[in-house]
Amino acid sequence: MAISFQQAAAMALDSVQIGFLPPAAHVTADNVLQLVPYAQSKGFDFIIAPINSPAYRRVLFENEGRLSPAMLAWRAGMEALRPEDLVLRTADRSEAIVGTLSDWQDFDSQDPKVRLHSELALRQQFTWAAHLGLGGVILPYPPSSRPLTNYSRVLTGTLSMIPYTVCWLRVPCMDNDLEKDVAEELQGMKSWERWNILRNMAGSDSKLGVALELSSTLPTDQVLDRWFAEPVKVIILHEDIFLTNNRGYPVLSKRHQHVVRMFFKFKPYFIISSPTMPKLVLDEFSDDVLEESLASPHADYIRYLYRTQDAPGVIDQFATGYQDYLQAPLQPLQDNLDSSTYETFEKDPIKYQQYELAIERALRDRPFPNGGTPDVTVITVVGAGRGPLVNCSLRAAEKAGRNVRIYAVEKNPNAFVTIQNMKAAQWGDRVNIVFSDMRTWKAPEQADILVSELLGSFGDNELSPECLDGAQKVLKLDGISIPANYTAFVAPMSSNKLHADVSGYKDLARFETSYVVMFKTVSLLAQPKPIWVFEHPNRTDIPLDQDPLSNHHNIRSGSVEFTSETSGMVHGVAGYFESVLYKDVILSINPATHSSGMFSWFPIYFPIRTPLYIPAGAQVVLDFWRLTDKRKVWYEWRVSCKVKGLGEIQWSALHNVGGRSSSIGLY
Amino acid sequence: MAISFQQAAAMALDSVQIGFLPPAAHVTADNVLQLVPYAQSKGFDFIIAPINSPAYRRVLFENEGRLSPAMLAWRAGMEALRPEDLVLRTADRSEAIVGTLSDWQDFDSQDPKVRLHSELALRQQFTWAAHLGLGGVILPYPPSSRPLTNYSRVLTGTLSMIPYTVCWLRVPCMDNDLEKDVAEELQGMKSWERWNILRNMAGSDSKLGVALELSSTLPTDQVLDRWFAEPVKVIILHEDIFLTNNRGYPVLSKRHQHVVRMFFKFKPYFIISSPTMPKLVLDEFSDDVLEESLASPHADYIRYLYRTQDAPGVIDQFATGYQDYLQAPLQPLQDNLDSSTYETFEKDPIKYQQYELAIERALRDRPFPNGGTPDVTVITVVGAGRGPLVNCSLRAAEKAGRNVRIYAVEKNPNAFVTIQNMKAAQWGDRVNIVFSDMRTWKAPEQADILVSELLGSFGDNELSPECLDGAQKVLKLDGISIPANYTAFVAPMSSNKLHADVSGYKDLARFETSYVVMFKTVSLLAQPKPIWVFEHPNRTDIPLDQDPLSNHHNIRSGSVEFTSETSGMVHGVAGYFESVLYKDVILSINPATHSSGMFSWFPIYFPIRTPLYIPAGAQVVLDFWRLTDKRKVWYEWRVSCKVKGLGEIQWSALHNVGGRSSSIGLY
Repeated sequence: MAISFQQAAAMALDSVQIGFLPPAAHVTADNVLQLVPYAQSKGFDFIIAPINSPAYRRVLFENEGRLSPAMLAWRAGMEALRPEDLVLRTADRSEAIVGTLSDWQDFDSQDPKVRLHSELALRQQFTWAAHLGLGGVILPYPPSSRPLTNYSRVLTGTLSMIPYTVCWLRVPCMDNDLEKDVAEELQGMKSWERWNILRNMAGSDSKLGVALELSSTLPTDQVLDRWFAEPVKVIILHEDIFLTNNRGYPVLSKRHQHVVRMFFKFKPYFIISSPTMPKLVLDEFSDDVLEESLASPHADYIRYLYRTQDAPGVIDQFATGYQDYLQAPLQPLQDNLDSSTYETFEKDPIKYQQYELAIERALRDRPFPNGGTPDVTVITVVGAGRGPLVNCSLRAAEKAGRNVRIYAVEKNPNAFVTIQNMKAAQWGDRVNIVFSDMRTWKAPEQADILVSELLGSFGDNELSPECLDGAQKVLKLDGISIPANYTAFVAPMSSNKLHADVSGYKDLARFETSYVVMFKTVSLLAQPKPIWVFEHPNRTDIPLDQDPLSNHHNIRSGSVEFTSETSGMVHGVAGYFESVLYKDVILSINPATHSSGMFSWFPIYFPIRTPLYIPAGAQVVLDFWRLTDKRKVWYEWRVSCKVKGLGEIQWSALHNVGGRSSSIGLY
Repeated sequence: MAISFQQAAAMALDSVQIGFLPPAAHVTADNVLQLVPYAQSKGFDFIIAPINSPAYRRVLFENEGRLSPAMLAWRAGMEALRPEDLVLRTADRSEAIVGTLSDWQDFDSQDPKVRLHSELALRQQFTWAAHLGLGGVILPYPPSSRPLTNYSRVLTGTLSMIPYTVCWLRVPCMDNDLEKDVAEELQGMKSWERWNILRNMAGSDSKLGVALELSSTLPTDQVLDRWFAEPVKVIILHEDIFLTNNRGYPVLSKRHQHVVRMFFKFKPYFIISSPTMPKLVLDEFSDDVLEESLASPHADYIRYLYRTQDAPGVIDQFATGYQDYLQAPLQPLQDNLDSSTYETFEKDPIKYQQYELAIERALRDRPFPNGGTPDVTVITVVGAGRGPLVNCSLRAAEKAGRNVRIYAVEKNPNAFVTIQNMKAAQWGDRVNIVFSDMRTWKAPEQADILVSELLGSFGDNELSPECLDGAQKVLKLDGISIPANYTAFVAPMSSNKLHADVSGYKDLARFETSYVVMFKTVSLLAQPKPIWVFEHPNRTDIPLDQDPLSNHHNIRSGSVEFTSETSGMVHGVAGYFESVLYKDVILSINPATHSSGMFSWFPIYFPIRTPLYIPAGAQVVLDFWRLTDKRKVWYEWRVSCKVKGLGEIQWSALHNVGGRSSSIGLY
């Protein structure tokens, strides 16, 4: 049995699958099976053909008045499809064919008969497509002048009846009928909104995707960006949106190239829609069904774009397999990290470079007492792990030409084995290793520089503040903490995929938990903004040489308002951090200031239970709290939407009340 | 041990519990315990007193600068309440005391210290109130100029820590600070909206209720109406909103009387707030702590209003115990009703009166063939049950002076036993009884009048259309069906109580099921509108003397738009029906046309999973479908909200896709 183009796509991960869409009116039961070898000879992987012939329109338009006995029988489910109703009559080559449903149905007609017959016809077509085992089904875009309610309901019901067949709603990226009178920057909004209504009714049915039709004029990046949070499975390109280059070959404009390249990461199928029907030799016994043997220049061009993508960066290589995967954040305080986790993070090419630079600068800034030679500088590394920051410190000391005495404090007994070896093999007397929790260690001398790498994706979410509060009594009064501070950033985000994945657990607690995720099918509704900051050392709240009486000074809260220029769905909050290690040496995963090439942290995702729709121009308000009791730290969050003149029109519940679903243990 | 006033209220179902609220500033630890016997001697059931003394303000206002060691210890939870912090120092008489929390905290301050200390103080007060076992706690209304976000979060977290103590947020029915510049008809909207935000954050915590403060000026009925869908547990009346009548006694205005009477059905506690502190004899050994022995004329007046309510109507009597109780709709086609169900419905004083009248009119309207004496009229009662419609038919025939021959068809073998007895004892030869499903019965002769009582709360929801379709072949071509038609009505409705009850099942299917409910804590956002109609006999879709080939003609759908004049929450859809039995003889449970005194049907409630907030002036759209396959009939529904200029801003999911959660079996 032939493998389907989808199986082929899965096998050839590094190629792009392209389909050929001839003009539907010219595809008949007689020529459809010749189209498959024709298209394949032109370098296509599959074809797109109508499932039904125009004759099938009879079920809607025959007998405008009273129903004929045949039609009564049909609608009672007592009459099957007739051969003349069909273009696709057999399962031959069905794995290489994507079917299109007819577009003459009118689901939202005022006439109950038209509504009903449209629905019955859709269901009959769909079950036939499923029976044939077509590679997929493309659904028509409802005329933009029509409501969508009943179409959405019909589709939802039909999808719930069909177990396997995937289907893609054809959506124009600009809906010309609707957008004649709309300001340029708003063009393309309505087609997303119409898809959004339909998709929200269908729930998160994973069988339903988008076949996005690119037009010669494209909407703004901001409008297009929303599609990256949607299940875009197919990109449709009409031959006539291609330009012709000097050598007479079809090429895309720079803007179209950019958009196509952006979509490559979602590995969509591409469909080239042709305005002309190829001449086929309609002799089924002839081997030569081909008009000419040259490959399609349009398909060739898409493959060329695919091959010539930028080589994946370090982050992309690292990220393979992590994209859109929900990970629980690390709890290094409560759990001990394993060796491979250390190893992964030690490979980051940027992070330790920045640490080294920060330590070097701090060493150079240490004053020379009495204008003479500086004493030995004491560097204490708390949470030394397998030793990377000790190595940074040693290299920095060398560069700065300073003598250092290093303490490396680690509580994880397994990591401690490694640093024992490091000391024996490389470090020698310059490094003192200490097996202890940094919060309870009695230091033999106070440090000039306290170095730590305790940051999580949200900055403070791995309890860096609490750990450094406990450790700061080992730091001299004029000592330096590296990092000096860290700021948490938040942004409202859209991602059907991530929300559906959280929903899949069918457990409230999963909606009240944060996840570390390499974002892929994610779109931010607005750029991230800072929500709170932690500074070290903290001499305001913590008495000198003492532990804090309570952890209340590490409570934070913030309320940040964003304006969403386009309409969109909020599925939760994206979290990031920026940290000043020392003066102008920073680490950042905030998109605007991201440390280039650094891969140690993915963003953090705080879901909300019920997604909120945000009208264009509305305000999204994110309220966040970092709270604490004697045993744990947790976040609570809430998302709301305000519209000028109407006030707060929507809100999520308060998530994770009292840390009931997720928290970070202090011990 | 003394019983609490709540236990007393539960025991004395038919009385009203009234509390005495003296000016807080004059209540001290020294006099608070004298206040209880004083208030009781004046006819009150309980008193309201502050939990803490003004001294407790120290936790917020002491040491504006750096925290003192004592304050550090306090916020670390290492210092208990001091005696001088408290008005209520012991649990003495706590069952007769409702405590008020202090109102000087500022939860949404910009100052983190003020926020934190406000929270810690609230929690300390609350846990003290719980420890004492106070009858309840009244929470202060947040100053209307302040945001509510952190207050709501603090309250939500605190409520989750306190297992039993009930608490009531004091809410003015008009917020004078906010409403100076607001049009009169909008006054009182903001205080509900502020409560709504807070309550939505706290979820449906059943410990949290409203203490609604009535002011001398009241908002419109529409604005007040929303409170009937809220957990209003306490009504606060200030002495100064009372008028003085001719005899010098305090009375309420007509409007206030009306509002108070409306609230009686929720059995709230009443609180009389007095501007003056009574003179107490502060000698604890004296029996005479009383200033005077006359009962409070204000409390007396409320009790007078309570005693002089209209006697409960037939429906109210019948409804006792049914109010706000979610019942599954009957499925008389699939299940057989039991005798007590028949008996209950047979007692309806209006329904059978209307049926008798309809049959009498129909009999009178039968033509006299050839201008002579009419033949015997054949009346066929389908679904005869225990025979009430047979009796109606016999009485109607007598009144109209017509000869009738009656067929009584019943499928329930147990009910059939009863009509066998009826025939033997009373009916004799005039009535032929038939044991059969009406849809399959082969009638010996066709009927002039086909009488049935198959209606559910939503008209067609007990499958009257399908049953009558099957039965209509026994009706002559010019025969009459009683009922002639029925129309389903829908309205967007608000009810925290009903929604919380459905949520309580923690099961999606329960949100996709309709319930028959005697509404109590329910408020309609707009008046009901018709959504579809069924007419009988149906000669268009059903061939003469045949059964229909399919049930598609009984599919219905409708989309109805409402304007909500006030803001509000939609928790689902209220459904009703109107039916024309014959010409102008109708049955209706639609509020606007309700058949007075008829109790056979409660409204039907279609919940939605996530409540929607509707801004004032927005459109609520209800989309409903009645769908069918070979085995069952089901409803699907969706609620959405549109705002002019913004389009559709919110929507519920499509509920009950494909009848997955609830349906009515055809067999």
